[in-house]
Amino acid sequence: MVRIEHIGIAVKELDKANELFKKLFGEAAYKEEAVESEGVTTSFFGVGPNKIELLQAKDEDSPIAKYINKRGEGIHHIAFEVDDIHAEMERLRGEGFELLNDQPKAGADNKLICFLHPKSTNGVLVELCQENEITNNLKP
Amino acid sequence: MVRIEHIGIAVKELDKANELFKKLFGEAAYKEEAVESEGVTTSFFGVGPNKIELLQAKDEDSPIAKYINKRGEGIHHIAFEVDDIHAEMERLRGEGFELLNDQPKAGADNKLICFLHPKSTNGVLVELCQENEITNNLKP
Repeated sequence: MVRIEHIGIAVKELDKANELFKKLFGEAAYKEEAVESEGVTTSFFGVGPNKIELLQAKDEDSPIAKYINKRGEGIHHIAFEVDDIHAEMERLRGEGFELLNDQPKAGADNKLICFLHPKSTNGVLVELCQENEITNNLKP
Repeated sequence: MVRIEHIGIAVKELDKANELFKKLFGEAAYKEEAVESEGVTTSFFGVGPNKIELLQAKDEDSPIAKYINKRGEGIHHIAFEVDDIHAEMERLRGEGFELLNDQPKAGADNKLICFLHPKSTNGVLVELCQENEITNNLKP
């Protein structure tokens, strides 16, 4: 694993949280992005080589809405950048970790992602992510 | 803020968690350290420019024991590296954040640290940390 790519934080109101984290970091979010497949609206802050991703549920069925209902706002997941997500998924499966998807799927910020079940990682929701080069290559 | 210095993860059994995270990262913890003032035993894993700190309570009065009793194992805090912890504390106090200590205190890994109250940061326990150069200079 190359580094912590980002930390995902579940928030109730993205606009208010954006204002707060702007004060915390002394700099505004550099982008907002809706991820329909995950039912979330996200914003991203840069902190040196790392990012903070704020996540607001788009509706009550979103995993983020369920998370906040159960545990309140707060840190939701850690995402680690990997060089080869297919190889890492294979390695971790072999080590006994439970993966939440069989194949990498498209995530926010043009990434291929895969989540590990928190019950196999001391309660920590771990995301693996890799820059989606195929999509990049297709860009004009 | 320079980068995510580390993510703190509350665990019940450090030895078992060390084994698990060794499988996750493909590399063992590079050190263990007791922090008496916080009532914890810690271990550290390197992930590129970032670290993961596992925290096990030394007794039932430790904040980590209370956290696990209330919320279970999982991500406990995010620590951001800062260049000048006194200046950052002053800036954040001015922005309305509630600091948990008036002055920086000694933390694990030879750091000066300060925590922000999670109620002022969307439920996220934020740590500021700066390398403690004075201690470094005193080393033989």
